[in-house]
Amino acid sequence: MEIDLPEVIAEVKAAFERYEQALITNDVAVLGELFRNDPRTLRYGIGENLYGYEAISGFRAARSPVGLNRRTAKTVITSYGRDTAVASTLFYRDTAPGKVGRQMQTWIRFPEGWRVVAAHVSIIDESNETMTP
Amino acid sequence: MEIDLPEVIAEVKAAFERYEQALITNDVAVLGELFRNDPRTLRYGIGENLYGYEAISGFRAARSPVGLNRRTAKTVITSYGRDTAVASTLFYRDTAPGKVGRQMQTWIRFPEGWRVVAAHVSIIDESNETMTP
Repeated sequence: MEIDLPEVIAEVKAAFERYEQALITNDVAVLGELFRNDPRTLRYGIGENLYGYEAISGFRAARSPVGLNRRTAKTVITSYGRDTAVASTLFYRDTAPGKVGRQMQTWIRFPEGWRVVAAHVSIIDESNETMTP
Repeated sequence: MEIDLPEVIAEVKAAFERYEQALITNDVAVLGELFRNDPRTLRYGIGENLYGYEAISGFRAARSPVGLNRRTAKTVITSYGRDTAVASTLFYRDTAPGKVGRQMQTWIRFPEGWRVVAAHVSIIDESNETMTP
C-alpha cells in the first residue's frame, strides 16, 4: 500500500479545503455533498452523535450560521492507497477562548468523488493540548 | 468498492474486540501493537492531542490503570474495500455518570495486520446524546 501519494494528497487536500470553506460560510449544500449519502455515515459532533446521513443533514439544516468562523492548526492529511485518507486538524474560535477543537475525518474515494464517511469533532481545554508534543 | 464484505468485517471486529479487551485491562503491549508504529499515526484523546506513535506510546505507558472499565453501545464497524474500516462506539463509565464517550478509529490493513492509523476519543454530557436518533 502506498502512503501519501502526491496526487492523492492533492485531491483530498482540495476536498478538505472546500469543506472548511463551506463550514465557515455555512454552505449547507456543499457540506451535504461532501458527506457520503448513506445510512452508515457517522458524525460525532461537539454536542451530538449523528448516525446516518439523514441525521447529519437534519443537524446541518437546523444549525445556527452564527459564529462558525475558526482558525485551523496542525492539520494533517494522510492517504493510504488511492481511495482512503484521514484528515485531522485542530481549530480555535474567538468565541471560545481557552478551548481547542479537534476534527478528524475519514475520506473515501467513490465514483462520485471523495466523501467523508466518518467524522468526529470535539472541544477540550487548551491547557491540556499544550501538554503534548 | 465493496462495502462491508463479511470476511473483512469479521477481521476488523476481531481486532476491535482485542483492542477493547486490552484497553479495559490496560494491556499496554497489545494497545501498542494495534496502533500503527509510524510518525503519522494520530490520536486525539479525552484530554490530549497525540501526534505520532511515540507520543501515543508515551501516553499509554504513563496512564493510570485504574477505572478503565467501560460499557460500549451503538458500536458500528463499516469497511470500505478490503483494506480500510472505521470502527465507532459510544461508551459509558460508572465513574463518569451522566457522560457518554465517543471513540472513532480508522483501521488500515498492512502486511503485519490491521492497525489503527487515527483515533479520536471524547466525552460529552449524555443529555446531548439522547437528543439524537
